[in-house]
Amino acid sequence: MKIALAQLNYHIGNFEGNLEKMLGMVTKAKALKADIVVFGELATCGYPPRDFLEFDDFIRKAYASVGKLAEVAQGIAIVVGSPSRNPKLEGKDLFNSAFFLADGQIQHVQHKTLLPTYDIFDEYRYFEPADSWKTLTFKGKKIALTVCEDIWNVGNENPLYRICPMDEMMDEQPDLMLNLSASPFSYDHAPDRIHVLKANVARYKVPVFYANQSGGQTDIIFDGGSIVMSPDGNVFDEMPYFEECLRVYDLDTVIRGGVSNEQPKEKIKLIHDALIVGIQDYFRKMGLKKAILGLSGGIDSAVVAVLAARALGADNVRCILMPSQYSSDHSVNDARHLAENLGIQYDIIPIEPMFAAFEQTLKPHFWSYPQNITEENLQARIRGMLVMAFSNKFGNILLNTTNKSEMAVGYGTLYGDMCGGLSVIGDVYKMEVYELARFINKDGEIIPLSTIQKPPSAELRPNQKDSDSLPEYDVLDKVLFQYIEKRQGPKELIAMGFDEALVNRVLRLVNINEFKREQTAPVLRVSNKGFGMGRRMPIVGKYLS
Amino acid sequence: MKIALAQLNYHIGNFEGNLEKMLGMVTKAKALKADIVVFGELATCGYPPRDFLEFDDFIRKAYASVGKLAEVAQGIAIVVGSPSRNPKLEGKDLFNSAFFLADGQIQHVQHKTLLPTYDIFDEYRYFEPADSWKTLTFKGKKIALTVCEDIWNVGNENPLYRICPMDEMMDEQPDLMLNLSASPFSYDHAPDRIHVLKANVARYKVPVFYANQSGGQTDIIFDGGSIVMSPDGNVFDEMPYFEECLRVYDLDTVIRGGVSNEQPKEKIKLIHDALIVGIQDYFRKMGLKKAILGLSGGIDSAVVAVLAARALGADNVRCILMPSQYSSDHSVNDARHLAENLGIQYDIIPIEPMFAAFEQTLKPHFWSYPQNITEENLQARIRGMLVMAFSNKFGNILLNTTNKSEMAVGYGTLYGDMCGGLSVIGDVYKMEVYELARFINKDGEIIPLSTIQKPPSAELRPNQKDSDSLPEYDVLDKVLFQYIEKRQGPKELIAMGFDEALVNRVLRLVNINEFKREQTAPVLRVSNKGFGMGRRMPIVGKYLS
Repeated sequence: MKIALAQLNYHIGNFEGNLEKMLGMVTKAKALKADIVVFGELATCGYPPRDFLEFDDFIRKAYASVGKLAEVAQGIAIVVGSPSRNPKLEGKDLFNSAFFLADGQIQHVQHKTLLPTYDIFDEYRYFEPADSWKTLTFKGKKIALTVCEDIWNVGNENPLYRICPMDEMMDEQPDLMLNLSASPFSYDHAPDRIHVLKANVARYKVPVFYANQSGGQTDIIFDGGSIVMSPDGNVFDEMPYFEECLRVYDLDTVIRGGVSNEQPKEKIKLIHDALIVGIQDYFRKMGLKKAILGLSGGIDSAVVAVLAARALGADNVRCILMPSQYSSDHSVNDARHLAENLGIQYDIIPIEPMFAAFEQTLKPHFWSYPQNITEENLQARIRGMLVMAFSNKFGNILLNTTNKSEMAVGYGTLYGDMCGGLSVIGDVYKMEVYELARFINKDGEIIPLSTIQKPPSAELRPNQKDSDSLPEYDVLDKVLFQYIEKRQGPKELIAMGFDEALVNRVLRLVNINEFKREQTAPVLRVSNKGFGMGRRMPIVGKYLS
Repeated sequence: MKIALAQLNYHIGNFEGNLEKMLGMVTKAKALKADIVVFGELATCGYPPRDFLEFDDFIRKAYASVGKLAEVAQGIAIVVGSPSRNPKLEGKDLFNSAFFLADGQIQHVQHKTLLPTYDIFDEYRYFEPADSWKTLTFKGKKIALTVCEDIWNVGNENPLYRICPMDEMMDEQPDLMLNLSASPFSYDHAPDRIHVLKANVARYKVPVFYANQSGGQTDIIFDGGSIVMSPDGNVFDEMPYFEECLRVYDLDTVIRGGVSNEQPKEKIKLIHDALIVGIQDYFRKMGLKKAILGLSGGIDSAVVAVLAARALGADNVRCILMPSQYSSDHSVNDARHLAENLGIQYDIIPIEPMFAAFEQTLKPHFWSYPQNITEENLQARIRGMLVMAFSNKFGNILLNTTNKSEMAVGYGTLYGDMCGGLSVIGDVYKMEVYELARFINKDGEIIPLSTIQKPPSAELRPNQKDSDSLPEYDVLDKVLFQYIEKRQGPKELIAMGFDEALVNRVLRLVNINEFKREQTAPVLRVSNKGFGMGRRMPIVGKYLS
């Protein structure tokens, strides 16, 4: 038996596009003599469909796609994920299901049991968990179908669920398991997947064919990396990251095992590639082409400019350099050099005339008060307005260049440098931004060295440095990582050896700035805890604040 | 037996404040000879605590509050909601529990079974559902404890869950049920609660004491309206809306029944009162005092100004009138009259000098392109910058004045009139804003009549009217209501008699503007489907767009 795994980049709600893509793959899989072709979780409608699932029209369209796929399931079986209606009155109205299509018909449906409802996931919001489990038989083989999370309760020390659906099917002695997934990227997630799959084959002694998806859905990036796991615990194959791919596997060869084909998992390269895909798919799926960003001469906007140029092509990226009276000459020069290195269009627009107009207008109201953050914010907001004016006039979408460290502690101006349609590096800590810059420069200087080497500064008042108001980034990032990614509280952080006053200050900054993050663009998620839907914090809370 | 219901306004993460408040109520309940005092769901930590629940430190603090309450549970029993740890390895790490405290000790704990995970609710994200149920006996009475949603699977035609926890306790023949709730306000929700409670007493034949909470938690407003329901199906008492309250009830009198004390539920008055509480609690719980807003002479900012003055006091509200060359004289006059009627400080700051500075600066880049939305947005953004400058300089928080109809179709400028820390009327459709204005004027003209009567206009180009770009609001609002609140798709809307082209246009506008709503302030929720956490839509989706 030959099994084809199709690792595809679906588009939420784009039923026609998703169907067309799958039909193309069915044809290809047939040509390659596959007996079965396996698509991803909720492949008909894209993942995560969120509250579109509450619209009956949306569900009807998903069923229509399953119907169309069933029609071409002739000479090949098709396994596809799609929502299905719960015929029972009790419970949620939908299941998250795997459909097995053959001989022009729906032969078997297995619903998902374990519904991830944590981090970015909201599945119990929509779906009823399965309460019955059955294998199916196709060409003499007993096949167990599972959907994504269904296999994740095995092999971890703190299982989230009380049951494992595969346990319920083992009585029927399946010959293999097919898993349909929508498992998003984080830079440390691929090894977890392999660990879980190894735990599954160790427990169930059957080969597992795990079909993930690729591509970005706003903030969430799917990395693919679909896996075929032999019963001996070897990774028989791991599909490429961030690409669409179809490969056909011979079941007997997979069962024989003894072959290991894992690919390298280098953190910074993975983040680099993920962000490029994230930008690309945001633009493509929104029907957009061109980006714009403010280039300050600092490292954050430099890295974003490079990623944007690589994602969209240099011709589709435009930069505006907006020096103020506090901008250093070398900042403007660094920004200019970068733009020239990348071959992207840039304009230099000093912000002083607008700043003067605001100051003049506000003078009757502000004259008796000292200059403060107000004037710094004015500068940042004039820049925001200028790039947004270009955005409106020419249709270039503004990329936000705030990094995760700044976003965490609220070091940024709402409606100023926090503007933008997509936050490219809002899930990348400052120290990781440096690593990205060095990675980008590995074959030659693209980002000017002085951009990487100078001390970070917002340049909103004379001789300003980030370290005037924030701890040094190497310490700050460590505290933030433990607090945000690892959910360590003040007690635990202090026990780790971090200074108590520093810990309290940083945690307070994170919490009192929730209101700013509430209003920022979607953040491309590359860690296991990014800002956005994956991290839901109260705003009026009074805890560590 | 005397039972005290304590309807309190908790604050998320404010363990000390919540505890102090409850200790005060315990003293008061003792003085009133109550045998039991009942607090709300998750009262120790506030509701919804969201991802703070992932911090062990947060859970420790909640347990400490329960411990402190147990100490004073002498001569009175205390029922309080708090998170508790799941001792089992399998399943989520926490339960959402009701603690019964008496004789200085925790006597009984009943976990919540039905975990709402829809709309604004995310409970299955954190909590394991109960799998065992027991009544407790106190002073000879058998008491069943339930938590909020636990009673909501009774009395509706499409039950969300497969079990009803109260069914599981009926074998023990309880004498009464205590329900600890955190049930948020929407203008149509109070009758639902009464319906559900009636269904419960009809099924279980026991009196129900239902303790809800009051007050705002950022966007979510709790209206209180705690209920005592006699077994004969009469509302024995309904506590006031939007207020803290403690009342003591004699169990025998409640059981006797025959008394109905429902209070009136007038939609516009409820919305009016809810918005005032929402503003008040946002400011108080954030430690803020003063608000600012831009006053255009239009109805939206007028209504928000009145609500803000009522919530915070006229002395704490400041307005800026920012006419452009396209503003009509009567707009400025209307705005001025309103400010004078309210006795709030106002300044008039024409935006022309800043607009001229931007135009001058952008001329070399834009000269060969026609004027378009860019120039309109520039004006809106200059206004945003000006009020934000006042906000930064004087610490007044900007109130956003966008209504739900505009927010739905994206009729507003990101970083312009969409600025603000809190959206006051973002869940109030335009036609409801008119009703609010008339309600405000019911005892005399506060909002100038011409503000109410003139056709809506953004005044960003000569003779502009909202109806140039949007359908008339009376039709628009009906389509939006069916689509947003009722989740009716295009097919259903057209079948209702709405024009097909109009339906497609409106639904498309709603969907392509998801990116704007992603970046707006929290919206005070007054309907059963507000923008924000209660409505989760993909941005890159391609459905009805």
